Amino acid sequence: MPGSRPDLRVAAREIDLSPTETAGGPRPNPPLQVYDTGGPYTDPDAALDPARGITRVRAPWIAERAAGTTQMGHARAGVITPEMEYVALREGLEPAFVRDEIARGRAVIPANRHHPEAEPMAIGRHCKVKVNANIGNSPLSSGVPEELEKLVHAVRWGADTVMDLSTGEAIHETREWLLRNSPVPIGTVPIYQALEKAGEPEDLSWPLFRETLIEQAEQGVDYFTIHAGVRREHIPLARERLTGIVSRGGSIVAKWCQAHQAESFLYERFDEICEILAHYDITVSLGDGLRPGCVADASDAAQMGELRTLGELTERAWAHGVQVIIEGPGHVPMDQIEANMAAEREACHEAPFYTLGPIVTDIAPGYDHITSAIGAAQIGWHGTAMLCYVTPKEHLGLPNADDVRTGIVTYKAAAHAADVARGHPGARARDDALSRARYEFRWQDHFNLALDPERARAYHDETLPREAHKEAAFCSMCGPRFCAMAISQEL
Amino acid sequence: MPGSRPDLRVAAREIDLSPTETAGGPRPNPPLQVYDTGGPYTDPDAALDPARGITRVRAPWIAERAAGTTQMGHARAGVITPEMEYVALREGLEPAFVRDEIARGRAVIPANRHHPEAEPMAIGRHCKVKVNANIGNSPLSSGVPEELEKLVHAVRWGADTVMDLSTGEAIHETREWLLRNSPVPIGTVPIYQALEKAGEPEDLSWPLFRETLIEQAEQGVDYFTIHAGVRREHIPLARERLTGIVSRGGSIVAKWCQAHQAESFLYERFDEICEILAHYDITVSLGDGLRPGCVADASDAAQMGELRTLGELTERAWAHGVQVIIEGPGHVPMDQIEANMAAEREACHEAPFYTLGPIVTDIAPGYDHITSAIGAAQIGWHGTAMLCYVTPKEHLGLPNADDVRTGIVTYKAAAHAADVARGHPGARARDDALSRARYEFRWQDHFNLALDPERARAYHDETLPREAHKEAAFCSMCGPRFCAMAISQEL
Ligand code: SF4
Ligand code: SF4
Repeated sequence: MPGSRPDLRVAAREIDLSPTETAGGPRPNPPLQVYDTGGPYTDPDAALDPARGITRVRAPWIAERAAGTTQMGHARAGVITPEMEYVALREGLEPAFVRDEIARGRAVIPANRHHPEAEPMAIGRHCKVKVNANIGNSPLSSGVPEELEKLVHAVRWGADTVMDLSTGEAIHETREWLLRNSPVPIGTVPIYQALEKAGEPEDLSWPLFRETLIEQAEQGVDYFTIHAGVRREHIPLARERLTGIVSRGGSIVAKWCQAHQAESFLYERFDEICEILAHYDITVSLGDGLRPGCVADASDAAQMGELRTLGELTERAWAHGVQVIIEGPGHVPMDQIEANMAAEREACHEAPFYTLGPIVTDIAPGYDHITSAIGAAQIGWHGTAMLCYVTPKEHLGLPNADDVRTGIVTYKAAAHAADVARGHPGARARDDALSRARYEFRWQDHFNLALDPERARAYHDETLPREAHKEAAFCSMCGPRFCAMAISQEL
Repeated sequence: MPGSRPDLRVAAREIDLSPTETAGGPRPNPPLQVYDTGGPYTDPDAALDPARGITRVRAPWIAERAAGTTQMGHARAGVITPEMEYVALREGLEPAFVRDEIARGRAVIPANRHHPEAEPMAIGRHCKVKVNANIGNSPLSSGVPEELEKLVHAVRWGADTVMDLSTGEAIHETREWLLRNSPVPIGTVPIYQALEKAGEPEDLSWPLFRETLIEQAEQGVDYFTIHAGVRREHIPLARERLTGIVSRGGSIVAKWCQAHQAESFLYERFDEICEILAHYDITVSLGDGLRPGCVADASDAAQMGELRTLGELTERAWAHGVQVIIEGPGHVPMDQIEANMAAEREACHEAPFYTLGPIVTDIAPGYDHITSAIGAAQIGWHGTAMLCYVTPKEHLGLPNADDVRTGIVTYKAAAHAADVARGHPGARARDDALSRARYEFRWQDHFNLALDPERARAYHDETLPREAHKEAAFCSMCGPRFCAMAISQEL
């Protein structure tokens, strides 16, 4: 889609549809255009070379701007940046509306000026609900090629942002390859790398953390998870819990505070952190280090105490022009989900909420992509802006490529269900196109309109593999004589 | 659990737990008792012979009662039947409360006097949310041994009732084997067999349907889905829809009405149907023949018109002492779920609601166990009494054994999440036991407390297969140095 300047062209995907057969002959169906996160990886004409990296779509726009200016700063000054226009075209929103949302902190565009490869996207309660996928190597596994493959896999299935949670060897190098080849914003948790450098949590320090922040900022990371809301006074509250502290960053910060009998440097140095972030226009994702790890601990004093601190930090970040998102639970029973959303909205002045699920029951390990999608869809409907996916391996082990695919598609479905329930403009177009194809037995269109066409096709073909069955007025579920849709059409 | 008479012993499952290691030595954890649907199939001491059938637990109770008396009739007369007491013990409710719920039609115990093998269970808004699994052969597949295996599989994974939707050969014989070996209530849709006999929808007739009803009633079917709510006046309303009529029963009835230019015999003969049902104490599941088949058609005039008719039929059935449940959608966007529950409650005088999902977005074929679990968990929380499972093959083909397992476990999780959100007494005990085991790295307990212990164990063992890792204070997800729960425990 062309924008207002020649170097602004918004990527989208078009799904071709076959004609509807009618008594009067075939009636064509227009193609359906859908939001696409795949960047060049879903462009059949793109020439790809990971060693060179992908196209730097934002390079000319960044070159026109001074360092230290942020999307939020421009928005407050009334400027519609090319990034805002891109997002508006992508989402079907008015550019001025996007600008206003960013100015008041209700939406963010995570876009480090050192990551020109990223296609602009927005996270906010009036945008489509987004999905984040976590990847990253661990001391036990995988190198650069595997992580790059996971990235491509993730954006192809629809991840809107990707967090690189690497903790093993070659963290810096892995991140460099990811950034130079990522069409979506990349997030990290800098304290992981700082801890790799320090060895033990108690040996962490502000200079070491600051150095790590700058190292990652220079590379182009678009948003940082920073657990600055874990204050000393909150830590004893977590002792009463069934499952203590289940955030890696939160547990590390708590350990540091305990060892030093001091407030964490993340909280103490928050303004200095913001100065660094503003310089690169990095978004801060305020980590929920005290999120509940089971439904019993949901909405407790530790979680709510931290949330209030996150609200205070939001205002401090905004004072520096730094864009903010707020991380949220975790594990929440369904009856508390709407209240969790309302509490965040109030405590954090409508800064976008970014939740991990939440999981709504603890009794289904192996199925936690599902128990969490139940919570994610609901909290998305109530206004959460981005959902961090959970894979079937949650609580049990490191996900493999197939788990990543299952996790992302599950979350794309949950996010889309939230868009539909919110009445987001145009959200239902894909549902309706697919339902129409289903009713007209256009099986190829049915598959192509699905979030995971390959799986839909494979499931269908398990019992009816022949090409002729792609035209059949039934499937093996009810069989030819009992196909309700076929009987209905005869009426 | 022993009841008030020697022949009343309620089945339950006990999960042994290992001790917690403390500084002062091991501290034992009491076993956790959970609701069990497996009947003799989960009893290691049971001698099983499908040719003889399982124990006829209800035989002595039925022998004490006259034919034509129903649980509803007894309840209205103030009698607490052994079935009501069984249900009360199983659910942790007061027997008098169960009786009162049944008397006013807010709960049902589907239990044909010709199915003494079934362990009593209740469906109602103040009981645990139940899950139904559909099985059944089709013209394309599977004989008696396969269907029996699916039944055992279904109850083992937790199906509270099973519907036999067979449409192919040997319907009568298959059903006989299922009934004689089923510890859970069996439901059917009698019009399927009637259609097999008739050949074409227009050749269906009241005598043929009546004969089929009695044939199945004699065998012991516990509840019948009957699409008596599809009235002639509703059928034109479905023409405006994106996906017309998607209920098999509904499309058959609509076809008959159109061919005969008449009101269906199911509606016209409803009182005669009720007389048959009362004789055996069969529950009627009022089918939603006009349920929406896509989110665009949700809550439309056809659906709501039929729902009002179901309310009228509910009162007619109750006048005969026949227990009633109401089938519901299907496909509903999240923002309409609570209203759908409220509409049913009002139109059908609080008769238990029994929904198929609902699916909350149409764009994820291959993942519809998930898109529907999102809706199912929510509508269960709002008061739906039983959830009909959906498998990953929905809309695409006949499920296989693994799809059945995935569908049931997914729905058990959704139903349990609803119980937790409703604050059902004791519902959270299993969540808390599992979370505690998780936090204390009692991996075997963690797996054993899961809804699907085999899958949880397999996922864990994919990366850490050694026995020693079952004691490890980490898993491969965050790895030994970054395990948040391990760091938290050091605090
Ligand atoms: S056979 Fe059943 S599931 Fe398959 S297309 Fe027809 S109505 Fe849909
Ligand atoms: S490594 Fe992570 S997922 Fe595994 S037990 Fe520890 S905190 Fe839980």
